[in-house]
Amino acid sequence: MKRYEQFAKQILQHIEDGTWLVGDRLPSLRESVKLSGLSLMTVVQSYQLLESQGWITSRPQSGYYVTKRLQPFAAAKGGKRLHLSESVEISASIFDVLQACKDPSIIPFGSAFPDPSLLIQPKLTKALAAVARRIAPHSSLANLPPGNDKLRRNISRRYAMHGIHVSPDEIVITAGAMESLSFSLQSVTEPGDWVVIESPAFYGALQAIERLRLKAVAIKTDPQNGIDLDALEEVLQKYPVKACWLMTHFQNPLGGTMSADNKSRLVNILNSNQVVLIEDDVYGELYFDQQRPIPAKALDSESNFMHCASFSKCLAPGFRVGWVAAGKHARKIQQLQMMSTVSASIPTQLAIADYLAEGGYDKHLRRLRRILEQRQHQMLRAIGDYMPESVKVNRPKGGYFLWLEFEPLFSAERLYQLALAEGISIAPGCMFCTSEQFNHAFRLNVSFDWNEEMERAMQTLGHLCHTLLAECGNISQ
Amino acid sequence: MKRYEQFAKQILQHIEDGTWLVGDRLPSLRESVKLSGLSLMTVVQSYQLLESQGWITSRPQSGYYVTKRLQPFAAAKGGKRLHLSESVEISASIFDVLQACKDPSIIPFGSAFPDPSLLIQPKLTKALAAVARRIAPHSSLANLPPGNDKLRRNISRRYAMHGIHVSPDEIVITAGAMESLSFSLQSVTEPGDWVVIESPAFYGALQAIERLRLKAVAIKTDPQNGIDLDALEEVLQKYPVKACWLMTHFQNPLGGTMSADNKSRLVNILNSNQVVLIEDDVYGELYFDQQRPIPAKALDSESNFMHCASFSKCLAPGFRVGWVAAGKHARKIQQLQMMSTVSASIPTQLAIADYLAEGGYDKHLRRLRRILEQRQHQMLRAIGDYMPESVKVNRPKGGYFLWLEFEPLFSAERLYQLALAEGISIAPGCMFCTSEQFNHAFRLNVSFDWNEEMERAMQTLGHLCHTLLAECGNISQ
Repeated sequence: MKRYEQFAKQILQHIEDGTWLVGDRLPSLRESVKLSGLSLMTVVQSYQLLESQGWITSRPQSGYYVTKRLQPFAAAKGGKRLHLSESVEISASIFDVLQACKDPSIIPFGSAFPDPSLLIQPKLTKALAAVARRIAPHSSLANLPPGNDKLRRNISRRYAMHGIHVSPDEIVITAGAMESLSFSLQSVTEPGDWVVIESPAFYGALQAIERLRLKAVAIKTDPQNGIDLDALEEVLQKYPVKACWLMTHFQNPLGGTMSADNKSRLVNILNSNQVVLIEDDVYGELYFDQQRPIPAKALDSESNFMHCASFSKCLAPGFRVGWVAAGKHARKIQQLQMMSTVSASIPTQLAIADYLAEGGYDKHLRRLRRILEQRQHQMLRAIGDYMPESVKVNRPKGGYFLWLEFEPLFSAERLYQLALAEGISIAPGCMFCTSEQFNHAFRLNVSFDWNEEMERAMQTLGHLCHTLLAECGNISQ
Repeated sequence: MKRYEQFAKQILQHIEDGTWLVGDRLPSLRESVKLSGLSLMTVVQSYQLLESQGWITSRPQSGYYVTKRLQPFAAAKGGKRLHLSESVEISASIFDVLQACKDPSIIPFGSAFPDPSLLIQPKLTKALAAVARRIAPHSSLANLPPGNDKLRRNISRRYAMHGIHVSPDEIVITAGAMESLSFSLQSVTEPGDWVVIESPAFYGALQAIERLRLKAVAIKTDPQNGIDLDALEEVLQKYPVKACWLMTHFQNPLGGTMSADNKSRLVNILNSNQVVLIEDDVYGELYFDQQRPIPAKALDSESNFMHCASFSKCLAPGFRVGWVAAGKHARKIQQLQMMSTVSASIPTQLAIADYLAEGGYDKHLRRLRRILEQRQHQMLRAIGDYMPESVKVNRPKGGYFLWLEFEPLFSAERLYQLALAEGISIAPGCMFCTSEQFNHAFRLNVSFDWNEEMERAMQTLGHLCHTLLAECGNISQ
């Protein structure tokens, strides 16, 4: 990160902390130079960056002022902390939401994938072309589960870089993280078993639970700090829970990340109740802070936790290559794989193995994180500009989703229909739970390059939200 | 097929029909020239081919004699026609059998895959390299389920070549046929539903039934003609069966193929009972006769049958590209896919699409069929040379498996253990059913190039079978 970006971030932190409120005048350029010890040019660039992102505005001959601040939110206090589902049925409409994003003429705010143009790497496609030219006949057998050796060693090294010990032997390569998550769940449950999930949760978890005929306890999850650990502790005392499926970092859809302390408490709670953690960490590499948040899996001394991730959010969604660091469950997972998809696609496994070995992935990730953070700011600015005042939104420290909540009577499902008619997709809250609980919320994908069309789309979306709020008699301005 | 190969085939047919028995002298070369109207050279080549395959042997100054003939077998008359399983549990040892084939030092007679060196196509790897160079960022979205358009159109055209109407719209591309079969089953069943399978059956079917918590009726299946249709008719009257999962051609493991008449009767039985057919046709392209056997799906006027196949047995196992022609179930299958593996690997889909469009696949298939037939003969010859007299084996008209049966007390599981200790893998009968019914049988993969090592392996296997038969007091010579 450049010096002016760092300084802009510092100022933003102050704004978020309430050091300066909306309407407050920021220190003048001269004052800032004095306070920070930075050059005037750097300070000017910082202020310009914040202005371009809509956080501050300049008034001629007067200085820079803090603009409207979006309301953050926390999980409602005293509200329902649990939601029990004896059988999970999640609407087929999820499919329609995802399919809508195939059409390039639709503005893909509802997409689950990051902007594809951010991901394509010439080094990776070169690696694939090279693999194609030298692929050996025996490779289809040699790379059967657990998958390509070199790739598993390279993934193991990436864990090691963050101080996490994961042996290549416990890594199983799968057709993306969705498959590894589903195998993980299947490997430790029988139909009828109880599983803990977040509320709201990634719809893939809901679907896997439905498919495997499990029972779900959905536990209230805070948009900043993750799952409610007190509630989790109570649940594990009351129900014979087998597994807990969580996103510890940049949770989908809320964006929250568990603190290191909370992860450590989580591990203690799960271990003392002998519950397996299935840790969905597909956004873990997309952090905006200085360091990768460390998975709970790293604290697992009993080889009982499973850490699932993939290259689909950071590098190559279409390659369908993910993995699970499965501890003692690795063999069971390979058995499940042999009987369902046999193995992940082999040319794409080999290409990623070579790409990782060559180096350059970390440079790509650094660039990707910076761009995603900028685009998140851009979207937050547009939300501030166009959405009704009563919108609540958080600023996740990674990933590429924003979660917007309105008053309880607001219908995100109607918004979804109306927006789609205008050529804009969103992901309505009902996709992420089995109850009606999140019908007043929706998820936006912020990863796409900003342009006039996006600006107009946000304007339209804001207009539709105003109309819907007026209809339900809840408009706040 | 060359003329001498055709003539050799005719003679072989006569031997199989019993026109000439073991020890009989074949017509002399001169007589054959006269009878057939072929040139002396062609006739000599035919006899030499049969000799090389072990069917006949020449005695100097005397002529050609028919050598030992292997016993064919039919499903035992009056035996148990059905096997009911309220819950299916298939041993984890299947995994060990399949894993053993990864080790290149093991003779892979137990492998489920064809000899990889038969499949690798320079045109295909070139296509993959070209795809890698021009892959567009948007492709990961554009090729979400149902999968790449061009590939689906080309598959539809291949159906049309055989006079079968399958619209590209009903084709869903999957990560191999195992995945499409599993989605097909899932799309029309609920846990606890009854499903008809063959006995013995492909272990993938047993595993899918176990995973989906279905109940299975396994119906006696003839090694030449396929499933017992009388028994099927009775079962459908007694049980509320939802689906019937069959391999109509070159059934795995037996090798049998349903006649056109039987397929037509099958379709009538299923339609009048409103039972869905899930037709596993992964070996359908590997026929040794003049024409591709026509799938039962072609007779389905109600768009209710699902036809599953892949490129894994004929072209590129490691690419993980298969499909289902799913009729009216296509949308449901796409939903299931979006929630489990998202899509098949996209570069490999695109590469196969280009390869099919360019032409050359049929030429490759013709060569592959001819080689597989030759290798089957080679293996039959080795069985005749080394196996105990009491072995029963059929000669399937396609695919690359042989199914060997011994006396009821013979333990193929012990053979598997003993053979593996000698560096030879086989696929024991217990992999293919949920009862003890086929413990006296095993499957051999005949697709590998014959060499001295293979010859020695068959010698060893024969020796082990002799020993095991002696142990169980059943040796017949």
